[in-house]
Amino acid sequence: MRYVVIVAGGAGTRLWPLSRKGTPKQLLPLIGDRSLLRMAFDRVVEVVGPERILVCTGASFADRVAAELPELPADNILGEPVGRDSLNAMAWPTAVLAARDPDATVAIVTADHVIEPEDTFRATLIEAFEVAEAEPALVTFGVVPTHPHTGYGYLWQGEALAGSATVRRVREFREKPDRQTAEQYLASGEYWWNSGMFVWRAEHFLSALATLLPDAHRIVTRLAAAPQELADLFGHLPKVSVDYAVMEPVSHGRTELAMVAVELPVQWHDIGGFASLAGQLAQDPDGNAVAGAAVLLDGADNLVVNRGADGHLVAAVGLTGHVVVHTDEITLVCPMADAERIKELVADVTDTAGDHYA
Amino acid sequence: MRYVVIVAGGAGTRLWPLSRKGTPKQLLPLIGDRSLLRMAFDRVVEVVGPERILVCTGASFADRVAAELPELPADNILGEPVGRDSLNAMAWPTAVLAARDPDATVAIVTADHVIEPEDTFRATLIEAFEVAEAEPALVTFGVVPTHPHTGYGYLWQGEALAGSATVRRVREFREKPDRQTAEQYLASGEYWWNSGMFVWRAEHFLSALATLLPDAHRIVTRLAAAPQELADLFGHLPKVSVDYAVMEPVSHGRTELAMVAVELPVQWHDIGGFASLAGQLAQDPDGNAVAGAAVLLDGADNLVVNRGADGHLVAAVGLTGHVVVHTDEITLVCPMADAERIKELVADVTDTAGDHYA
Repeated sequence: MRYVVIVAGGAGTRLWPLSRKGTPKQLLPLIGDRSLLRMAFDRVVEVVGPERILVCTGASFADRVAAELPELPADNILGEPVGRDSLNAMAWPTAVLAARDPDATVAIVTADHVIEPEDTFRATLIEAFEVAEAEPALVTFGVVPTHPHTGYGYLWQGEALAGSATVRRVREFREKPDRQTAEQYLASGEYWWNSGMFVWRAEHFLSALATLLPDAHRIVTRLAAAPQELADLFGHLPKVSVDYAVMEPVSHGRTELAMVAVELPVQWHDIGGFASLAGQLAQDPDGNAVAGAAVLLDGADNLVVNRGADGHLVAAVGLTGHVVVHTDEITLVCPMADAERIKELVADVTDTAGDHYA
Repeated sequence: MRYVVIVAGGAGTRLWPLSRKGTPKQLLPLIGDRSLLRMAFDRVVEVVGPERILVCTGASFADRVAAELPELPADNILGEPVGRDSLNAMAWPTAVLAARDPDATVAIVTADHVIEPEDTFRATLIEAFEVAEAEPALVTFGVVPTHPHTGYGYLWQGEALAGSATVRRVREFREKPDRQTAEQYLASGEYWWNSGMFVWRAEHFLSALATLLPDAHRIVTRLAAAPQELADLFGHLPKVSVDYAVMEPVSHGRTELAMVAVELPVQWHDIGGFASLAGQLAQDPDGNAVAGAAVLLDGADNLVVNRGADGHLVAAVGLTGHVVVHTDEITLVCPMADAERIKELVADVTDTAGDHYA
């Protein structure tokens, strides 16, 4: 059977104060009135149904995830006691599904992205399930790059499978490149961005894991059989990314598995910070993106998000190129160019005003 | 006897949203925890005592003035049903005091300013009382100009009185000059800024008023005798400034009165807008003036005023040269250079978000 695991673990400090320690960005209604998690769920529910969706999140967010997705069976929320990076957020749910259904094929999707159109995403997801069921391979999704992004891994395209130019073996997985290398990748036309989403048969992934990280394999299979041991076992899992622990060695032939990528022909945006959030919101003719009650007079290229109590107004005159985020507890103002420094600001706020504001 | 009238009528739109329709700037704790009105009261109370201080304000603010100055007898708050510019705010209280005490000498002081040191101010006030009691003159206060300000009237100094270089006849009162003229005034050393504060014997002022604006004289003396006719009479008063209606014609010899100025050797700052407010607050080494809870990382030359509910934090990174004002209902952000446009912004806010926010 087919399953979807939604990984919703990140805190999203770069969207502070919209995201807070207790409210990761996936739970925020950032675009319109749906949260990123809700959008991720809605995107896949008609492919596998709500009973075959798992969400892997921080244990402290499990209740909020349950409230956000009331259709989801309670057993399908896996709460990590502490963050253990991306490998575990994928390996643990895969082991849980393998224990429930030895024939499980698992899609791992993220809740960090806005993806459009959703129909195309679903068709590609189904295509990737079919490839994973037919081939002993880890299947990943390749996004056609539009600019030399240095924040993504890249997939070097190999031979086409089954006569389809959009399903290809991956010659090599390449970690985040420097700018010059990213430009070469883009110019060559032979690379896709690695989307961070995967499809694999549970048994294939677990056999690769047994080869590459036998300790991690032992722990996640034990966790799947004996969930009551979570508190004891979890801290022993290695804190490592799936890219480093699995993708790279698999792409170098260190397991029996092939790596195959399916082209994902969608608009695919990571809402990683305020610049990308501004790009996803409707903009007025002056380039202002506004969410919530605000009056901007003669300003341009601002992002204004007002999530304060009803009746609170944000007003600006002559403001250009700034981020203004208002919540009931915190008001943030910074030039758009300094939005990358918000993590540093949060550390400063925590030092001077208290941990409460993190 | 000596009396002090504090004129506290203005709305202070340029300090919005600190000042609002219902909360004029004089009632705000702008500097430290005292309001400008409280500061004006504290400045003069030891000269005349609380019973001989009157406050002339908008009728809708009378209750708040009473709460702010509990020492003030209720009869000593004069509430104007509608704003009638500066002449009336001085003429009506003068007529009221003349009716109470035909021998009254009246000092008119404003509540818009920060004045330091206060001791020097009080000594000068007493000196001005003495001049007004000895001479048939309107006495004004001359501030030594420090730059060619185009927003003030200027006093052209005439002969010294009683051998004191700091008490002089005023050769002419000059309305707000253009920049070039202001520079000439400054260079000549023969001009003082007109402070907008006065001392006069009530009978002198009223006789000049009877000559210059007989209708206004008739109405304010009637109001003093029959306060119950306020609603009927008030609308008939001319809406005119004391500079235009009295200062200019008196300085041109159109009455029996002389004009005398006493030099006021104090730091005298009009808190007219955010730039002047920033100048009055303590600044950190980077030129940031901060009032209320705020964390600024690597910013410079900002004014941040946080008057939100306890616990609300303003945070900024990389912000330079901006005004951020947070109140429970409104958050304002603008470049310091655009703070002069706040009146325009308030009009825009009123149009689009409702009169409530004015």
